[in-house]
Amino acid sequence: MPDTIPAYLHEFLRLHPADLADRLQRLSLEEAQRILPELPADLAASALAELEHDRQRELLSALPTQKLAPLLAELPPKLVAEVLPSLEPIARRAALSALPGDQRERVQGLLRYAPDTAGGIMSDRFIALRDDMTVEQVRELLREQAQEERIEDVAYLYVTDTGGRLVGVVSLRDLLFRRSERRMTEIMNRGVQFLNATDDQEKTALQFEHYHYLGLPVLDTAGRLVGVVKATDALEVAQAEATEDMQLMVGLSGEERALTPWPTAIRRRLPWLYINLVTAFLAASVVNLFEGTIAKWTALAVFLPIIAGQGGNAGMQTLTVIVRDLALGEISVGDGRRALAKEMMLGLVNGLAIGVVVGLIGWWWKASPALGFVAFAAMLLNQLSAAFAGVAIPFGLKALRVDPALASSIFVTTVTDVAGFFFFLGLALLAMRWFGA
Amino acid sequence: MPDTIPAYLHEFLRLHPADLADRLQRLSLEEAQRILPELPADLAASALAELEHDRQRELLSALPTQKLAPLLAELPPKLVAEVLPSLEPIARRAALSALPGDQRERVQGLLRYAPDTAGGIMSDRFIALRDDMTVEQVRELLREQAQEERIEDVAYLYVTDTGGRLVGVVSLRDLLFRRSERRMTEIMNRGVQFLNATDDQEKTALQFEHYHYLGLPVLDTAGRLVGVVKATDALEVAQAEATEDMQLMVGLSGEERALTPWPTAIRRRLPWLYINLVTAFLAASVVNLFEGTIAKWTALAVFLPIIAGQGGNAGMQTLTVIVRDLALGEISVGDGRRALAKEMMLGLVNGLAIGVVVGLIGWWWKASPALGFVAFAAMLLNQLSAAFAGVAIPFGLKALRVDPALASSIFVTTVTDVAGFFFFLGLALLAMRWFGA
Repeated sequence: MPDTIPAYLHEFLRLHPADLADRLQRLSLEEAQRILPELPADLAASALAELEHDRQRELLSALPTQKLAPLLAELPPKLVAEVLPSLEPIARRAALSALPGDQRERVQGLLRYAPDTAGGIMSDRFIALRDDMTVEQVRELLREQAQEERIEDVAYLYVTDTGGRLVGVVSLRDLLFRRSERRMTEIMNRGVQFLNATDDQEKTALQFEHYHYLGLPVLDTAGRLVGVVKATDALEVAQAEATEDMQLMVGLSGEERALTPWPTAIRRRLPWLYINLVTAFLAASVVNLFEGTIAKWTALAVFLPIIAGQGGNAGMQTLTVIVRDLALGEISVGDGRRALAKEMMLGLVNGLAIGVVVGLIGWWWKASPALGFVAFAAMLLNQLSAAFAGVAIPFGLKALRVDPALASSIFVTTVTDVAGFFFFLGLALLAMRWFGA
Repeated sequence: MPDTIPAYLHEFLRLHPADLADRLQRLSLEEAQRILPELPADLAASALAELEHDRQRELLSALPTQKLAPLLAELPPKLVAEVLPSLEPIARRAALSALPGDQRERVQGLLRYAPDTAGGIMSDRFIALRDDMTVEQVRELLREQAQEERIEDVAYLYVTDTGGRLVGVVSLRDLLFRRSERRMTEIMNRGVQFLNATDDQEKTALQFEHYHYLGLPVLDTAGRLVGVVKATDALEVAQAEATEDMQLMVGLSGEERALTPWPTAIRRRLPWLYINLVTAFLAASVVNLFEGTIAKWTALAVFLPIIAGQGGNAGMQTLTVIVRDLALGEISVGDGRRALAKEMMLGLVNGLAIGVVVGLIGWWWKASPALGFVAFAAMLLNQLSAAFAGVAIPFGLKALRVDPALASSIFVTTVTDVAGFFFFLGLALLAMRWFGA
């Protein structure tokens, strides 16, 4: 129905690209694909850059190259470099070679770095001054480039030597007050903080938070200035990493959204649920070992959910603190022993506090002091296992160079279930043998 | 041992305040208290501002007012306003009245806003230009204030009318090129994005991420310019909110760190573990209802951990996606029905996929087709309950104006345990009655 398009367009044209992206995200794929080519190229391009990767790929791959190329030509190189990896290799090469020469070169420069590095999140919109330029020459340069929007947010300008290597920084303010004939080498500040293009993006984000930088220059291995990372880029990385950590812990992809289509979600979730199933059967086989005990003393079965529930919750508490602190760099591998000592102490106190309550209830409910004592002791041991697993598993994953969050809640609850059931049913068996409880 | 102090000092004096804060965090409280008064007031003050709130309070409350006042006098008002709430009311009033008049006034201005608002995270280090000033006058003003460090990172300057109301913005770049006699009203940009001082800090952080702002002016209810929020402030808020969400979900305080002293951690964790215990007894009492059934058919007990484990994991997957997307503003209350439909679909497919496997294993392991069928059906219903609870609980908490993350994993696993056990044992009882399985 082409007659519906103008109604849409009218409203969409007034939106900020980020808000337009939200709308494109919520439309059905068919509608979004129909609307996109009708939008002005610059607006469509900026909105595309803000879309989630799945939707980006869906929309871009549906566009023929002759529609795609003018769209991409409107985008700053950083955004083209962000969008291109969503395309199939053939479409990517076609789109790249359709770009104007200068832009293509800049995009290729940005694509050189892995997406999870400082080079992968940097922008190449910065102004580099040569160290022998005068204040007057710089003012002239800025006037010329004012149209280019290269310097919209710039408070600092970077100074390089003839080899393009970063040697200093001057503030715009300096240019206001210094005499016209002064050279950059005389007025620049030489102590510049910088990032290496291959620095991990997570560490980069933490540096921004730690030192409150608004922007940092990025150098290649030869010390040449190749880009700039802004605080808002770091903010985006930090949000994405936090989401990823939360999701990885429970067996999600790290990128799932509430409105991700269900077939995509199934593909990512089900394998982890199957792994969880294997670990659940591990716990079940511990119970199975003691089936004879339960047959004689069925009250034990009633307490299994309490053992599992308390161990699981305590383990998740420990795990959450450790995983997040590792991600934020608040603790390092060397702090493992101190963190473990704290958590074991917590496990002991929590174990006693919960164990006494569970023990007394068990005694009263089932009129069996033996059950009460077994529940008390098992709960104490279970809380200690939860504390141990909650520390050991993320530190262990880190030692294996895997993300400490990866499926860690599945592993921790396996330990708490298996250990909890084993202690509880094992102690119950001993109690039956010794006291004939 | 006063002779050990110089050794420490020597190293500490060379550190960035943020790194010094890390060191003070890791020292024992006694050591940190001894070192702090020995440091130069400006360095000590900046490091204090970076400390975690618990440690800040511990260190500050140990300082006598005559040591504290000169320390605070060194800090920019924003940092004093951040530090003061850590003090006991009496010490706080004493410290505040010991500040120089101008600084005290600015600190009180900042303290007017709740800490979780834009006003609470803003800085008052900004330069406001009057709209009738000329370019020449502004240049003069900037030259005078260059020493004051008020404008270190500034790329934009805000323009106000005689009533202090924000009317426009000029960039430093404009001041470079415009003729000296032009007035701000002529060269300023009138379409300024801004925040209200009472805006929620979380929403503020999301705006920075969404629109890539590097800084935003903050207005009071009368439209007067009262401060500026920078992207790095938003980054800090975003990190803290992500940590809080992860922690609240599992019954942590939202502020616990891996090296938080254990007595503090116990006070925050144990109440939630007791609440979890109540819900665990709820699940146990469902099992208790069917104790007679289990007594006759003990294989059922073996499958309880599998029901609980799979339901809990699937529920956590759904919950994590929903909680995080609500926090990031990716979905709103109106999206509840769409999110529920997706998750129920996932629950159905996962339930069938897992149910078939569990059912076949149950049949084979216990040589009982009835057990297999009961396990299959219970698993399917359990996965559907997990999907429902994972959506309904965070949306329900939000409707109650509580943080959707609050103890939500405890509530979700209660539902999956209770529903899972009820379906499994209830179906088993029916199977026994009908087929004498």
